[in-house]
Amino acid sequence: MLSGPASAVSHTDARAAEARARSHRRRAREVHSVGGMSKYLEEKPALLGFHMPAEWEPHQQCWMGWPERLDNWREGAFPAQSTFVKVATEISKFEPVTMCVSSAQYMKAYDWLHVNGNIRVVEMSMNDAWFRDIGPTFVRCDRKPSLGDQECEVAGIDWKFNCWGGPEDGCYSDWSLDVLVAKKVNGTFLILELDRLPRFSHRMVLEGGSIHVDGEGTCITTEECLLNTNRNPDMTKEEIEQELMMYLGVSKIIWLPRGLYGEMSREDGGDGGTGAPVGGRRKKREGGKSRSDDDTNGHVDNMCCFVKPGMVLLAWTDDELDPQYERSVEAFSVLSNTTDAKDRKIEIIKLHVPGPLYITKEEADGLVTLDESAKPRLAGTRLAASYVNFYIANGGVIAPAFGDEKWDQQAYHVLTSAFPNHEVVMIQGAREICLGGGNIHCITQQQPATP
Amino acid sequence: MLSGPASAVSHTDARAAEARARSHRRRAREVHSVGGMSKYLEEKPALLGFHMPAEWEPHQQCWMGWPERLDNWREGAFPAQSTFVKVATEISKFEPVTMCVSSAQYMKAYDWLHVNGNIRVVEMSMNDAWFRDIGPTFVRCDRKPSLGDQECEVAGIDWKFNCWGGPEDGCYSDWSLDVLVAKKVNGTFLILELDRLPRFSHRMVLEGGSIHVDGEGTCITTEECLLNTNRNPDMTKEEIEQELMMYLGVSKIIWLPRGLYGEMSREDGGDGGTGAPVGGRRKKREGGKSRSDDDTNGHVDNMCCFVKPGMVLLAWTDDELDPQYERSVEAFSVLSNTTDAKDRKIEIIKLHVPGPLYITKEEADGLVTLDESAKPRLAGTRLAASYVNFYIANGGVIAPAFGDEKWDQQAYHVLTSAFPNHEVVMIQGAREICLGGGNIHCITQQQPATP
Repeated sequence: MLSGPASAVSHTDARAAEARARSHRRRAREVHSVGGMSKYLEEKPALLGFHMPAEWEPHQQCWMGWPERLDNWREGAFPAQSTFVKVATEISKFEPVTMCVSSAQYMKAYDWLHVNGNIRVVEMSMNDAWFRDIGPTFVRCDRKPSLGDQECEVAGIDWKFNCWGGPEDGCYSDWSLDVLVAKKVNGTFLILELDRLPRFSHRMVLEGGSIHVDGEGTCITTEECLLNTNRNPDMTKEEIEQELMMYLGVSKIIWLPRGLYGEMSREDGGDGGTGAPVGGRRKKREGGKSRSDDDTNGHVDNMCCFVKPGMVLLAWTDDELDPQYERSVEAFSVLSNTTDAKDRKIEIIKLHVPGPLYITKEEADGLVTLDESAKPRLAGTRLAASYVNFYIANGGVIAPAFGDEKWDQQAYHVLTSAFPNHEVVMIQGAREICLGGGNIHCITQQQPATP
Repeated sequence: MLSGPASAVSHTDARAAEARARSHRRRAREVHSVGGMSKYLEEKPALLGFHMPAEWEPHQQCWMGWPERLDNWREGAFPAQSTFVKVATEISKFEPVTMCVSSAQYMKAYDWLHVNGNIRVVEMSMNDAWFRDIGPTFVRCDRKPSLGDQECEVAGIDWKFNCWGGPEDGCYSDWSLDVLVAKKVNGTFLILELDRLPRFSHRMVLEGGSIHVDGEGTCITTEECLLNTNRNPDMTKEEIEQELMMYLGVSKIIWLPRGLYGEMSREDGGDGGTGAPVGGRRKKREGGKSRSDDDTNGHVDNMCCFVKPGMVLLAWTDDELDPQYERSVEAFSVLSNTTDAKDRKIEIIKLHVPGPLYITKEEADGLVTLDESAKPRLAGTRLAASYVNFYIANGGVIAPAFGDEKWDQQAYHVLTSAFPNHEVVMIQGAREICLGGGNIHCITQQQPATP
């Protein structure tokens, strides 16, 4: 059972809060500094003055992982690797990119990415390549350290990872390498900087793709994912909310009921039933595997994201017969009837989904079976395709295109208008990432610049 | 064929040299900077103002690799790993240590080393753990960059590595991971610092253990190793000398004929013949494999090293019947009859070798055969054991002890007297490293601090 104070960081009495935070930081240092280096911190980030910045705030760099699972990336992972190279290359025009690659694939990635000097390649093994979910969630402390009080300014949260659902619902059966990624990211920093990048370790299961923040106290997430019994069955909604506040440094959680519609692959073609809790109820599905529609059980980053404080983009469809329609309308209703942490009404921009798109036979045939219990990718399955799943780089928006001319074009216009100060780059071939179960936001992780 | 100017950096006309170096650096930047980042440099380091600092100059950190080959480290590598942990832990009391570990061993090393906050563990695959020989040789540029002239201050030389002798003479048959280590070391640096750590790539075969420098223009090496036909058969002694000058930024090479005596393991017990060139002659052995006595073909770092400019420690024995005697006397004679780059006579301190020590049956039986062509380690083989093979950390000297009470004790006294401003730490159990073919200097690599 996790516990914490009954409220998030107080916005009043800044002086007292600062003194309290300073004392917390000092205590954390005393306890965890060995040989002059902080290795990890046990204090809750918000109590030390940390919060997760919005994605549009300045980045130090972007982290990515290299895809190679032959049971998830077709044709020897070649088309996916080609797309990841495109994504990394485009992001690297705006900010540095670190690509993490297994030993076996190192030289392939190195040679392929070598053309751009703003990309580094480091050896790091993973079970798959979803850096948003397995990488650390970075938080930042904006308070200037006073003289003689040298604390870190950016840190990584190392959430517990259970492969999007644990032994029964997870996407594959062995995620032993994934769980080490946040540790290893920490390890790649120069020793003398370790003190500036401690790791907050958390026992709660959470993936980075299931949360979005506005950097001003608001977090948006989905009940379908965070309240799913395959994540943290022993925690109540209030306890989860409390942990989000203490770790992300937010004071308001907006709960969308569900994420994007996408069929679960099943031999019988899928039934579209969700098995997911609606409206906050914790419901255990009866009979069968309690898998939800998409691999992630409704990650918010495929459904809705902030453009700026008080404004979101929402995956939408005008087709009332599309199962997505009900989900979008439901989310629209929640968003229309709430306010953010600063009591602002929320402006909603609709971003129409492509397609609908389905896995083709050729695509399904390009996969091999490595792990009998891994989630299958069968021909005819509806893809969870959404333009909301983009990455905001320093001055750029790197968004998926699906070869759907009408909606690709419209997405470009909506994004260009939503981000007037960013250059919008649409990645053709992003369907390849979608075939693996996510998109550009899922395979990237921003590391905020120090203040 | 490698080529370069006929002389090393001129010590006269500093102003012109500085202007020339600045122009070279600018050119190197223009050619190799892509997206604002230098990835590698083709210019010769000395022409850009770089030189290899002496080991006693301040370090940023020490690099090490994790031993795990079951055919080179007995009993599942456990005793070796235990010793490496001791070495890393002792060094980390003086300076930060980065331990590079394969994915399979990552958590083992992480947990074992975790006790000390001055150690970081990064994932990096190697074929074995000799960071001195497979890691980059770091060079430093001491000229302060002027405003608007932001060039690197420390860089890594990425020598060609052929596993101490190539397909015929090498220690094992696959060194494909070893050759990537210098690239990967570069890759572990934060992107924003890449510009400060470029890589000089070299086509000449060389291991870091085969050279020592005094930081003031002198390099000491052995003909047995550098002129061995299994390294650079197409280069003359003069060409090799020229490359050392251009890459290490030295102007004088002192050539010892041979390194330490140590038997090559053979089914017939070894014959002690060297097959190595003496006095600079290039000699190809006739018949059989042209392996020399020890794994390294006489690396200088097991035989002789600088204490300070104008003073060396030389592996010695008083036993005229020991094959080592001839080698030590020969080296003593060369050192006594030469001067260094600054025309100083060289003071020689004798450091008596332990033993002689031999591989026991129990030790040999603790190994498994993985690679039929790997160098065998047979019971009864004389170990190439020497106290000269130590590491100089910031304020510390980390030296091997072999359980030979008399000579261990004497080595401690000699080292303490040679390094009056360093704390000397003797590592009991260093025999385990020696069993694998080297010692503490061979498994470490210092990265100089920036000026």
